[in-house]
Amino acid sequence: MRVSTTRILKNGRSMLLSYDHGLEHGPKDFDVNTVDPKYAFDIALEGMYDGIIVQAGIAEKYYHGYYKDVPLIIKLNGKTESLGSTLVISKQICSVERAIKLGASAVGYTVYDGSPLEPEIFSEFGKIIDQAHEYGIPVIGWMYPRGPNIKNEMDTDTLAYAARVGLELGADFLKLKYNNNLEGFKWVVKCAGRTKVLIAEHSKIEEHAFLRMSDEILKTGAAGMVVGRNVWQHDTPFAITAAIRKMVRDNMSVDDALKLYEEQANKEKK
Amino acid sequence: MRVSTTRILKNGRSMLLSYDHGLEHGPKDFDVNTVDPKYAFDIALEGMYDGIIVQAGIAEKYYHGYYKDVPLIIKLNGKTESLGSTLVISKQICSVERAIKLGASAVGYTVYDGSPLEPEIFSEFGKIIDQAHEYGIPVIGWMYPRGPNIKNEMDTDTLAYAARVGLELGADFLKLKYNNNLEGFKWVVKCAGRTKVLIAEHSKIEEHAFLRMSDEILKTGAAGMVVGRNVWQHDTPFAITAAIRKMVRDNMSVDDALKLYEEQANKEKK
Amino acid sequence: MRVSTTRILKNGRSMLLSYDHGLEHGPKDFDVNTVDPKYAFDIALEGMYDGIIVQAGIAEKYYHGYYKDVPLIIKLNGKTESLGSTLVISKQICSVERAIKLGASAVGYTVYDGSPLEPEIFSEFGKIIDQAHEYGIPVIGWMYPRGPNIKNEMDTDTLAYAARVGLELGADFLKLKYNNNLEGFKWVVKCAGRTKVLIAEHSKIEEHAFLRMSDEILKTGAAGMVVGRNVWQHDTPFAITAAIRKMVRDNMSVDDALKLYEEQANKEKK
Amino acid sequence: MRVSTTRILKNGRSMLLSYDHGLEHGPKDFDVNTVDPKYAFDIALEGMYDGIIVQAGIAEKYYHGYYKDVPLIIKLNGKTESLGSTLVISKQICSVERAIKLGASAVGYTVYDGSPLEPEIFSEFGKIIDQAHEYGIPVIGWMYPRGPNIKNEMDTDTLAYAARVGLELGADFLKLKYNNNLEGFKWVVKCAGRTKVLIAEHSKIEEHAFLRMSDEILKTGAAGMVVGRNVWQHDTPFAITAAIRKMVRDNMSVDDALKLYEEQANKEKK
Amino acid sequence: MRVSTTRILKNGRSMLLSYDHGLEHGPKDFDVNTVDPKYAFDIALEGMYDGIIVQAGIAEKYYHGYYKDVPLIIKLNGKTESLGSTLVISKQICSVERAIKLGASAVGYTVYDGSPLEPEIFSEFGKIIDQAHEYGIPVIGWMYPRGPNIKNEMDTDTLAYAARVGLELGADFLKLKYNNNLEGFKWVVKCAGRTKVLIAEHSKIEEHAFLRMSDEILKTGAAGMVVGRNVWQHDTPFAITAAIRKMVRDNMSVDDALKLYEEQANKEKK
Repeated sequence: MRVSTTRILKNGRSMLLSYDHGLEHGPKDFDVNTVDPKYAFDIALEGMYDGIIVQAGIAEKYYHGYYKDVPLIIKLNGKTESLGSTLVISKQICSVERAIKLGASAVGYTVYDGSPLEPEIFSEFGKIIDQAHEYGIPVIGWMYPRGPNIKNEMDTDTLAYAARVGLELGADFLKLKYNNNLEGFKWVVKCAGRTKVLIAEHSKIEEHAFLRMSDEILKTGAAGMVVGRNVWQHDTPFAITAAIRKMVRDNMSVDDALKLYEEQANKEKK
Repeated sequence: MRVSTTRILKNGRSMLLSYDHGLEHGPKDFDVNTVDPKYAFDIALEGMYDGIIVQAGIAEKYYHGYYKDVPLIIKLNGKTESLGSTLVISKQICSVERAIKLGASAVGYTVYDGSPLEPEIFSEFGKIIDQAHEYGIPVIGWMYPRGPNIKNEMDTDTLAYAARVGLELGADFLKLKYNNNLEGFKWVVKCAGRTKVLIAEHSKIEEHAFLRMSDEILKTGAAGMVVGRNVWQHDTPFAITAAIRKMVRDNMSVDDALKLYEEQANKEKK
Repeated sequence: MRVSTTRILKNGRSMLLSYDHGLEHGPKDFDVNTVDPKYAFDIALEGMYDGIIVQAGIAEKYYHGYYKDVPLIIKLNGKTESLGSTLVISKQICSVERAIKLGASAVGYTVYDGSPLEPEIFSEFGKIIDQAHEYGIPVIGWMYPRGPNIKNEMDTDTLAYAARVGLELGADFLKLKYNNNLEGFKWVVKCAGRTKVLIAEHSKIEEHAFLRMSDEILKTGAAGMVVGRNVWQHDTPFAITAAIRKMVRDNMSVDDALKLYEEQANKEKK
Repeated sequence: MRVSTTRILKNGRSMLLSYDHGLEHGPKDFDVNTVDPKYAFDIALEGMYDGIIVQAGIAEKYYHGYYKDVPLIIKLNGKTESLGSTLVISKQICSVERAIKLGASAVGYTVYDGSPLEPEIFSEFGKIIDQAHEYGIPVIGWMYPRGPNIKNEMDTDTLAYAARVGLELGADFLKLKYNNNLEGFKWVVKCAGRTKVLIAEHSKIEEHAFLRMSDEILKTGAAGMVVGRNVWQHDTPFAITAAIRKMVRDNMSVDDALKLYEEQANKEKK
Repeated sequence: MRVSTTRILKNGRSMLLSYDHGLEHGPKDFDVNTVDPKYAFDIALEGMYDGIIVQAGIAEKYYHGYYKDVPLIIKLNGKTESLGSTLVISKQICSVERAIKLGASAVGYTVYDGSPLEPEIFSEFGKIIDQAHEYGIPVIGWMYPRGPNIKNEMDTDTLAYAARVGLELGADFLKLKYNNNLEGFKWVVKCAGRTKVLIAEHSKIEEHAFLRMSDEILKTGAAGMVVGRNVWQHDTPFAITAAIRKMVRDNMSVDDALKLYEEQANKEKK
């Protein structure tokens, strides 16, 4: 079946909101507002994101009521990074079929290439891609190089290899972390070929820096961004979203985006 | 299929009787009366519990005759904690389908988040949730953080993380141990979102202390309690049950509940 | 489906002949007569045993011709104890379905509770019970505590735990070794609840001692005995069988049973 | 379904040609003629063997053209003994169903009893026997004791144990190595009960010694022989075959067989 | 079903283009042109190769538009050799069925004979061959001896063993590396029997040396060549292809092939 990406990709660009931190990092990323998944779903809805990324449990209990308006992306694996599970693998928790039943327009899966358990990871990822494509939905690979022989996960060559692995295995989109090397990252994007690259923030940073980084990201050839804490931890999530959206969708310059953010933030704070 | 929780949850509150100690702890928890599963089933029946939690073998041989009146919750995994099996995993023993055949209104499963075997545990738990929800019955996660990097299982942040994992993976109820920190535990309950929290005793304690702890537990926002040894090891199990039931169902004050317990206990002893 | 125990249990009592030593111990248990499975089948037939316990291979090649008259119990797992296989697990060799096809009225499985591989053992045993009960045949658990934290496998508390595990997991019968502690073993039997306890000899002993031990065993509350080398290694297997049968079936006193044995042995030797 | 052994057993005797050395030992066993599987198939055909033993790949590419005349026995597992794979297990490579499709009249499988991986081996072998018997074809067990606690694989007691394991698990034929102990091996054969024993050479030896050993082998009670290098590495394979065949089929004396060999060898060399 | 090799074998000869380096080696093998899979597909098309070898992901995103003209060979396993995954195994990523859906005329799989994980590799390879042959498509085995007991992977005896393993397991074609020993390699090819041998380059070398090596390769009895970096990293890929094609298809002498290459290269550079 033909894989349909139109739900999460508009005119070749995509802006996704990630909210799977509760499993990976634990509640330490949340406060009394952001701990409620409804908070993130509302940002995704009103901020007109092309999709929200959550684990199956969150989808099952909170997606109802948003499903016509916010495309759902279910992350199929995950682990308690912060509790210190030590194996470099994140096994599938939710089947593709269950994700479809929950309303997913796409599914995600973390691949640790270079892991001592790489054979098992690749094998599971291959099956997921096959199944998802049978249902006609795209697969997003979280491509994270990790293992005893990987010195620097943010090295351009290492990221380029990770991107290539995503293409070779058959992912439709890749989520990669940005290493702040614009020229290097153009090569990374090239190595992904027809697989679209989405670039993610590392951690929460100051908003002007964040918008400047976003501008640079969009110059690498990437198809878009996956944002998370820089938005839902922000005190004016709609203002920062508006600025990013203009950059991603309308190629607004970073200076105009900064101005837009300032205006919107002032209104939102009132 | 819509998951039906009405069998084990009444007006948003639940009071469950746990009787799976024979596998986890061995017969050392029992005396000549309590070793007989009928003893526990009779308490569940006459004490009007919202469910009794047992392993499949007990259900198959003793549930007959109670099934209209006591909702059955089958624990799907378990291990001989006291015999010292060393792997931090408790694999599935009973399938969801077998539990359904035995009359289960809900199923339970222990999740050791932070275990070196976490990937296998999460994967098995994900499948159980998917299957149980296909049958329309809820899943209760015993969320126990355990592993080499977990210093204190009763730390509020650790319990909050465990609660969040339960929500993210898709459990409908969580069984958590109470750490005697009321304010902290409110945050734990919040992290579980729309997943209901049931709080369990640690071990047998003096009854006044137990009722005061129960009162505090219900102030955390939890949906109810899972009791075990504090009831079926008690010499007046119906008196202690009556007091708890009034607190859980009718929000009786702890002082009134203590009085009720004393009255009932005097009658029951005769 | 209702589990039918009537083939191997008569009036609440059972006397089974075990002949799986060829796999567990090797041919060193045999002589030129006893090495032939026909020898054991003939004892089971003429001695009116409630069942003979063998591995699938023996059943397939020798059960033909006895199947109307001797109930068949197939042991589903096994290992070369004497060749020194080191893992504390005995994996399933024969499926429940194959056992049924071979004519089994019950199936048996060894459970090493406390083993480092306990999770895998419990998981396999749970599936066997589910399948056997679907076919309506009972499951006998060989409950053997074994593992790094088990100091004494014959300790009453350890045996009581093993018996309880058998009940909790869903076995219909348990095979346990007798520890020569009558009062202690009554507790062991109690811990098994509605699961019937069958008690086995350890090794070949002198016949008077064996009959006295059998008498004691029947006073523990056990439903019967599993005999092996004390019968088929005996030079008058029918005499010793007759005495045990009278004790198990008709509650004959040990003194009368001893007399019966002497009379029959004299005839059989001629 | 009844297992049919008539294709590979004639009047209770069998003479099989083994040609799976390419996988187990590598090409070092071959010369420019014997490396060609056709060479072995032609010996099997013209030498009127009761079957040829090969791996699935050889069967698929060479059996066409012989299938009416030479019964095919597919070895279902194998490993590069000489390349030094270290785990004491040889996993199934070819399914029973594939073997049937390729025309097999029987299947073979190597069992290392006493291996640290014995549980996995027994489990796989049990499934193979079940499947093969469903199709009505016999299973030959290569019974090789091997493991840390086995001092001497050729010890009579060890071989007797291996033979018994084959019977208990349900093999129809066993392939065992001869330990040059005629009286001891009679016990080995007895331990196999109704499972037929086929005895194999160790390695290539001088032809007179080989025929005298064959004569002794047939006196152990074995049903026949599995020959390999002593035939297809021989410069007069048909002469040596003729002598063995007369011994196996017609109980020819070793002296007559030696004479027959000499006559035929002289003709064949011309 | 009969296995059809006609798509990738013409008159007994085959010339394949390999482009799976992105997964095995990473993008370091590529430049800004060769990183684009279209570059390799165009060479395969215009160079009239008998097939192009890629991973499933590349096939799914790039094969459309070439499928009538370039036979597709999907490599079913792979690993990040350069990222240093340490287990000597490359597990299946793409199922045979998925490969068929993607348009594959053949499938490939790397076998590390002698690996400590050889049992798992052989087992997986056996299933692949069975499935592929059910669909009627051939299997190419990348036969690479690797493991603790293999001193020299390029030793003639070791390569001969690897070739034999390919035949015994049932591969239709083998990809082997050439060890520059013409007489030795004739034996290697002989050991593969009716399984066709395709020989691969090691690494990029000077073109005259490459063509002389190709000439020698075709004298070993091999059915053809698998080329990769020596072609698509070459600045005149069509010239070098033309020369090889004439040698493989028309047995052109190496001297004529060298001349042809020079002429074509001059034209192509213009």
